[in-house]
Amino acid sequence: MKFSKDLNILIIGLGLMGGSYASALSKKGYKVNAITLDQESIDYALEKGWIEKGTTEPDAEMLGNADITICALYPTVFIDWIGKNQHLLKSGSILTDITGVKEAVVDKVQGMLRDDVEFISAHPMAGREASGIMHSDDSVFNGANYIVVPTDKNTPEAIQLCKELGEALGFCKISELDAKTHDTMIAFLSQLTHVIAVALMCATDDPSLEKYTGDSFRDLTRIAKINDEMWSELFLINKETLLSQMQKFREAFDALEETLINEDREEMRKMMRLSTERRSLFDKKQR
Amino acid sequence: MKFSKDLNILIIGLGLMGGSYASALSKKGYKVNAITLDQESIDYALEKGWIEKGTTEPDAEMLGNADITICALYPTVFIDWIGKNQHLLKSGSILTDITGVKEAVVDKVQGMLRDDVEFISAHPMAGREASGIMHSDDSVFNGANYIVVPTDKNTPEAIQLCKELGEALGFCKISELDAKTHDTMIAFLSQLTHVIAVALMCATDDPSLEKYTGDSFRDLTRIAKINDEMWSELFLINKETLLSQMQKFREAFDALEETLINEDREEMRKMMRLSTERRSLFDKKQR
Repeated sequence: MKFSKDLNILIIGLGLMGGSYASALSKKGYKVNAITLDQESIDYALEKGWIEKGTTEPDAEMLGNADITICALYPTVFIDWIGKNQHLLKSGSILTDITGVKEAVVDKVQGMLRDDVEFISAHPMAGREASGIMHSDDSVFNGANYIVVPTDKNTPEAIQLCKELGEALGFCKISELDAKTHDTMIAFLSQLTHVIAVALMCATDDPSLEKYTGDSFRDLTRIAKINDEMWSELFLINKETLLSQMQKFREAFDALEETLINEDREEMRKMMRLSTERRSLFDKKQR
Repeated sequence: MKFSKDLNILIIGLGLMGGSYASALSKKGYKVNAITLDQESIDYALEKGWIEKGTTEPDAEMLGNADITICALYPTVFIDWIGKNQHLLKSGSILTDITGVKEAVVDKVQGMLRDDVEFISAHPMAGREASGIMHSDDSVFNGANYIVVPTDKNTPEAIQLCKELGEALGFCKISELDAKTHDTMIAFLSQLTHVIAVALMCATDDPSLEKYTGDSFRDLTRIAKINDEMWSELFLINKETLLSQMQKFREAFDALEETLINEDREEMRKMMRLSTERRSLFDKKQR
């Protein structure tokens, strides 16, 4: 199968991410349908022109016609959904996802899925600190990273198609990682940062702080407005890996504290210069 | 003295902040001169129309004419500068500053200063992760906080004048704090966040991370590009207060880790909801 505008794309779950996918793809002229739990989200997407059709129940015809099914669901909900509805998927179709953890998801779904449907996993590294389709905004994909997570069960064609989907969505860097490496990266880059932001907000109960804050605190805690249902699930699924990344951070934090306790200004400045040098690699590039 | 466009304003130090002050004030029609170490910065400010005159040496005439002298210098440099040049300040004039720590600065400067010049301290809570006048940008003051730090030696007139200066610069919230409270706030809101950002960048040496990162990591480490000379000075001057705020953060970080180790999802979600609720107070308001 080649990625093209002739394909029928079906999005399962019109939340923040599913809605942003529908928005990005429909704008470029792709044919998008959706299945999601509540009628309001469907109405919203229809009104915006993001989807052609939508239903609140797994619709046999819609599923049976979909060449690409994108599950924009929480990990556990995704696995449940496949168990219940995979018999409705089109033979020869491609299934993909957006879940933020992969080791506990990819093998499991590939193991349980029918042989005539191929699951190729992907992680769009973009989002917002809000949930629901009303907050959907495909501009967050601009300049962002899209990670395809293939296994040895995947065909080169499906991997290629998944990458082209990422490009169509507007992502800047498309890359490949195995599930284990992905989960380690994500534990450090995404989960640990959310842990830090939440810890910062929980560290003090002084309500007057907002009067005195600067941009640095705002930036560090933007993601402290957190979807507790989703993130607690992601943390727990990736528990051991996240714990080890938290330990890495703690060691660096302690080392910096040590320079302060010892008033070792040279060592402190050395860490700051290392930080400055490494951080310059991370500036977002627009394409 | 009333704050008005008739006053001669003199900025000492045309770095990132001094330049932004000059830009903001000159745009509104205030008369601004400057003294700074290098001719290049003066030429830049002259070319931009941010200052009327500038010199690289403490100029007796310029200092003797200044109604308000704003020292935009690092804390230790500021104290040195006062020691060397206070005899040149205009009798009856106001001196203010931008230093990020106050306990070690305000009493000292008020104690050493001539009786006929009043020092009223202030902290503009805005900046950028770069230094030098080429990066000056007064738009960072928009929606930001400006803290005046008076002591019992200050007159109501000087406090009022300093607040009007903050408004003229474009700051949104102008407030007052005593030096000790200021330093505690800043240790938490500003210094701790810089410690965290630097620790995050020092926690791993994997150069491929930038390929996979999302906005959360970029946001948390924006300030990891840090002016090591200035921040190491600020950390060390505020050592004990910063250490105690670091400890507060560590306790919250450990508590969140505990919920993960124990797989106590309810407690984890409780912390996340507390974080979400508290963070909503911090969104920046434009005026």
